Amino acid sequence: MAKSDNRLKAELPRGFADRSAADIRAMDAMLARIKTVYERYGFEPVETPMIEYTDVLGKFLPDADRPNEGVFSFQDEPSTSGAPDVRRQKSSGVAEVPKDERWLSLRYDLTAPLARYFAENFERLPKPYRSYRAGWVFRNEKPGPGRFRQFMQIDADTIGAASPAADAEMCMMAADAMEALGIEPGQYVIKVSSRKMLDGEMEAIGVADPRQRLTVLRAIDKLDRLGVDSVRALLGAGRKDESGDFTKGAMLGHVQIEHLIGYVTALVRDGDTSARDSVIEVASKTKTGVRGLDELEEMTRHWRAAGFARDRIRIDPSVVRGLEYYTGAVFEAELLFDVPNEKGERVVFGSVGGGGRYDGLVGRFRSEDAPATGFSIGVSRLLAALKALGKIDTAAIAGPVVVLVMDRERIADSQQMVTELRNAGIAAEMYLGSSGMKAQMKYADRRNAPCVVIQGEDERTREGGPFVQIKDLVLGKQLSETVADNVAWREERPGQFEVPSADLVKSIHELLERQSGGPEQ
Amino acid sequence: MAKSDNRLKAELPRGFADRSAADIRAMDAMLARIKTVYERYGFEPVETPMIEYTDVLGKFLPDADRPNEGVFSFQDEPSTSGAPDVRRQKSSGVAEVPKDERWLSLRYDLTAPLARYFAENFERLPKPYRSYRAGWVFRNEKPGPGRFRQFMQIDADTIGAASPAADAEMCMMAADAMEALGIEPGQYVIKVSSRKMLDGEMEAIGVADPRQRLTVLRAIDKLDRLGVDSVRALLGAGRKDESGDFTKGAMLGHVQIEHLIGYVTALVRDGDTSARDSVIEVASKTKTGVRGLDELEEMTRHWRAAGFARDRIRIDPSVVRGLEYYTGAVFEAELLFDVPNEKGERVVFGSVGGGGRYDGLVGRFRSEDAPATGFSIGVSRLLAALKALGKIDTAAIAGPVVVLVMDRERIADSQQMVTELRNAGIAAEMYLGSSGMKAQMKYADRRNAPCVVIQGEDERTREGGPFVQIKDLVLGKQLSETVADNVAWREERPGQFEVPSADLVKSIHELLERQSGGPEQ
Repeated sequence: MAKSDNRLKAELPRGFADRSAADIRAMDAMLARIKTVYERYGFEPVETPMIEYTDVLGKFLPDADRPNEGVFSFQDEPSTSGAPDVRRQKSSGVAEVPKDERWLSLRYDLTAPLARYFAENFERLPKPYRSYRAGWVFRNEKPGPGRFRQFMQIDADTIGAASPAADAEMCMMAADAMEALGIEPGQYVIKVSSRKMLDGEMEAIGVADPRQRLTVLRAIDKLDRLGVDSVRALLGAGRKDESGDFTKGAMLGHVQIEHLIGYVTALVRDGDTSARDSVIEVASKTKTGVRGLDELEEMTRHWRAAGFARDRIRIDPSVVRGLEYYTGAVFEAELLFDVPNEKGERVVFGSVGGGGRYDGLVGRFRSEDAPATGFSIGVSRLLAALKALGKIDTAAIAGPVVVLVMDRERIADSQQMVTELRNAGIAAEMYLGSSGMKAQMKYADRRNAPCVVIQGEDERTREGGPFVQIKDLVLGKQLSETVADNVAWREERPGQFEVPSADLVKSIHELLERQSGGPEQ
Repeated sequence: MAKSDNRLKAELPRGFADRSAADIRAMDAMLARIKTVYERYGFEPVETPMIEYTDVLGKFLPDADRPNEGVFSFQDEPSTSGAPDVRRQKSSGVAEVPKDERWLSLRYDLTAPLARYFAENFERLPKPYRSYRAGWVFRNEKPGPGRFRQFMQIDADTIGAASPAADAEMCMMAADAMEALGIEPGQYVIKVSSRKMLDGEMEAIGVADPRQRLTVLRAIDKLDRLGVDSVRALLGAGRKDESGDFTKGAMLGHVQIEHLIGYVTALVRDGDTSARDSVIEVASKTKTGVRGLDELEEMTRHWRAAGFARDRIRIDPSVVRGLEYYTGAVFEAELLFDVPNEKGERVVFGSVGGGGRYDGLVGRFRSEDAPATGFSIGVSRLLAALKALGKIDTAAIAGPVVVLVMDRERIADSQQMVTELRNAGIAAEMYLGSSGMKAQMKYADRRNAPCVVIQGEDERTREGGPFVQIKDLVLGKQLSETVADNVAWREERPGQFEVPSADLVKSIHELLERQSGGPEQ
């Protein structure tokens, strides 16, 4: 682990990333807008910790007697201290480290922890319970381009409402969230279907085992990406990808596969043409399918009442969602505009979030029914979309005013000027390194400083003073393009001016106003 | 793990907590104010992920060949999928799960990851590098009252500046942060000392082993809490606490212990009386001690230049800080007001944050020197302090307007009203449960709704209509105290009034204005 010179390599594990000031500010601004929409819809924030009991998350495999590989897990063995040399001993003198062998995991999504929270606080929560949260989730999976092992989601959920009105509201809220970010109808659409329709279909062809159903769902969920032939393989014995990796299939028989493929290929065509009729015909064959159709119809009534037209929310039976816990409506927020992929081809941006009804999740903890529905946005992907659309202000934020240090013996003078500026609400700092003038100017430039403040001996001691030099770095950069040569440059000192020290704050206020093209905020 | 009825218990592991809407809003508001101060000081945000390589965090014990017990750790074994039944196989057909045996850990603080970040991005970062971040950290330690295993810190650090001016700035910024939160001089103080003074002392009495030095530091750090006799025991063979738990000591000899105790008991007296002289005398005995004194003197010059008096920042040699990596100045933000403890006694609130100079941390990765200094605030403790001071607005935030559903056949009408309100920027929701009128009113009450909107058949169909009933829940509660009996109550319907449906938005705007005692924000 250590290198040959005995120094560690400074690196992150694969699938994790640092966040720059620009990333943090862009994400904060985006989340703030989404939260405003969610609050307007009557949702309130609630947050759970990153760590839960593995079995509470539904990620403990009783057969294998260990947690699911896809989650980060550890056993609960709190020691009394972080120090390696401190050990607890009972007064008997026999070393006895207290252990709790129960497995803990980092949360995999925000839904399972919310189900735990709702069940744990059932008595005191208003019902239906409407809440939202933004938070990091963790997956111990193979990372890849754009695939992280820690990423942020923002979720909204209504628990304790069986009505399709609750599902309809999720879709409207998702649409309003997109538009609050500047994504217009036509650039996005919320596509909606019902898991009950596919469940009815699986019922009809005799696929009953929950694991097999999940494998079928995941196979169909890949239709857009892999095409019909690959899905056919995944419904059967399995599929080998380009890298040679093999994924085991659902092991359906030939007749079952062709039946599902027929259904699925009807699904992928637009829901409003003849394909729609064939979907309705297929779904109508079972009671479960009919219930799904009825619920979608009631949802449509709500969208109409609220004025959401088909360009914002529409029924699209090709939506499946790959998670096993959905029991009714499923929805997906899809961005419809093109972006270049790694190969430079134009591809539709695709899904930035989704959700659906999950009526069974709270029932793991309680005997009472707790029907629930929710919507989750993948924050990084949506942020990437906003960047592609130019909806994120990528202009670098102005850095602090940098007060240079000309004479280390007079550093207290610099400190005083910085303090004056800060007390006036201006972001400012004194150069704290040990380098000379040129490096200090370069530093100010890298910090994106609006200007630097300079006070040498001349400015300090000249009659009528003390004075300070202020160098406008923005103006200086513009002017430098018009100056012919280095000698002229040094003589003209473009953007640089002198004011009495007493006018420092006033002059910098004026400079910041000029740079921002108006009165400072 | 499952209960006898086969249902899981909905519970969190010990030491973890959920956060309510009020908690989240209070913390967000507090962090926003602190960040404003940090940005004014020229610090910019940067964030690292929760997970790092264990050895990069300095928490891998090469002797034991495993991570330190105090951190949550796991081995890096990413699987290809979260599904239990999907296994990767190479085309040879032989199962081969790719493994990376290197240990990963959840971060223990925000300093070690920052050192990694700085070293990894050394070339492109401005130097000195000034940054801040708020983030969750994790400790796999025994939880207790107010002691969590996941908690939030907000840190600011300057890396690449050896000057005591950088340390002085940390202390000023901490003081300004306290005041931005409404904590006044006299209610808080930033206490400052230098690790070099104690290092000099340990040098003088021949304590050289780093582990032994750390145990000494931790023992002295407990002086306030445990008293002189316990510290004496911890410097020697060890100490058994009330619960019978035994902590191994630093194993110093009698002469060493009494020497340190003499120094320490001088330290705990106020730095400005004769104790100060004895501290200076002791510290002056070694070169290291003298350097510490010199640095404190330079810091004092900066505070003077910036106008920070002794009631805001002061030298106090009793500050030690229990972390091994400090190499120079150490500081602590202490709150001086009393709060009742569990036993009802008044006790000084105490430390809410601290920090210091850590010149060696980046050097683990790079051959170049990277002197650094930082300050960290324990967010939960500071929030508790603000609550104790009444500086957090604990009044419940008004919930959404709740539109009741009187007739399920007319639910689209309710949806329409809700949409009108939301489109006007008013937080509103339709009741989504299946209960009757009484339960709906109780729900609105629990949501802290400002009012409910009711439209029954009469309001909808009466001539001149449609109308809506608006019930002001705040006014209703006030008036109910003046109404004599139930019959009168039902007749008077306090706080309830009727308006034409077309005036719904206008009337609710007016109601919200009345309730907030002024024009709506």
